[in-house]
Amino acid sequence: MSEAVLLIDPAAATSDPFFGELARQMRAVDTYGVLDTLDNAEILDPFILTKERRREIPVIGDPDDITLARVKSYYNALAVMIEQRVGLMATPIINLTHEGFGRALIAVGKLIVVDRSLRDVHRFGFATPAKMQEEAGKLVDRAVALVEAHRDVATL
Amino acid sequence: MSEAVLLIDPAAATSDPFFGELARQMRAVDTYGVLDTLDNAEILDPFILTKERRREIPVIGDPDDITLARVKSYYNALAVMIEQRVGLMATPIINLTHEGFGRALIAVGKLIVVDRSLRDVHRFGFATPAKMQEEAGKLVDRAVALVEAHRDVATL
Repeated sequence: MSEAVLLIDPAAATSDPFFGELARQMRAVDTYGVLDTLDNAEILDPFILTKERRREIPVIGDPDDITLARVKSYYNALAVMIEQRVGLMATPIINLTHEGFGRALIAVGKLIVVDRSLRDVHRFGFATPAKMQEEAGKLVDRAVALVEAHRDVATL
Repeated sequence: MSEAVLLIDPAAATSDPFFGELARQMRAVDTYGVLDTLDNAEILDPFILTKERRREIPVIGDPDDITLARVKSYYNALAVMIEQRVGLMATPIINLTHEGFGRALIAVGKLIVVDRSLRDVHRFGFATPAKMQEEAGKLVDRAVALVEAHRDVATL
């Protein structure tokens, strides 16, 4: 955050629906208002982990609260995007050991539409903003296709 | 455990498949072997919470490790019973805040076959052994019926 160069385009961080939702989710868990003076691009910047940035993050010790907030916000934002597309409630379930390993699920009714194992949450991030959009888009598309194929289970 | 009277029948604790599995699950997480000298009935006894026993448990502070082990073992045992009936892998996912609230899921493929919210895990238990068998039996039956109705999703 203290870095001078932002790796995410400020215009995209506001106009892109996923980036907008992700920033909103981060603000939602920002109890003490430390993000109040930041714009979306500044809030989303730590999600972008270039090789250099990745190298600087130690995997020693437990991941800190702000890292966990990013993981949760990411899956919350995905759930909102899925919800908007299918018109059914999508519930994220994040299961993390304090060491930073675990599993992230998103359920629609009794259907699991996203299921990922989490490793090295310390280094949760994406190489570029485009990579983040691409991965999120793929997960949402796959989830929507699953709901369409199994609407009976998704509405249970 | 220090109580003289066991509320669970030693014969049933060994012969009943669910009780047997539950005791096995408890032994599986017993890293330090403190349960080694106990028989099944002694291990399962703390799952039975009569009104009197329930009253003695404070809901102040976080639930302790042995209580959490009981909750996890219970859902693990259910998952094993479901697995045996449907012939597909059943995965328990327990999501608990440290205060003892949360959610317990069992998934078969992409199908959620058990979904319960957890409250006051401090007092996790059943009024009588028969009540425990009955509740477990109902959850397993419902899960099996769900798998049968949506085998396509359960095998995804």
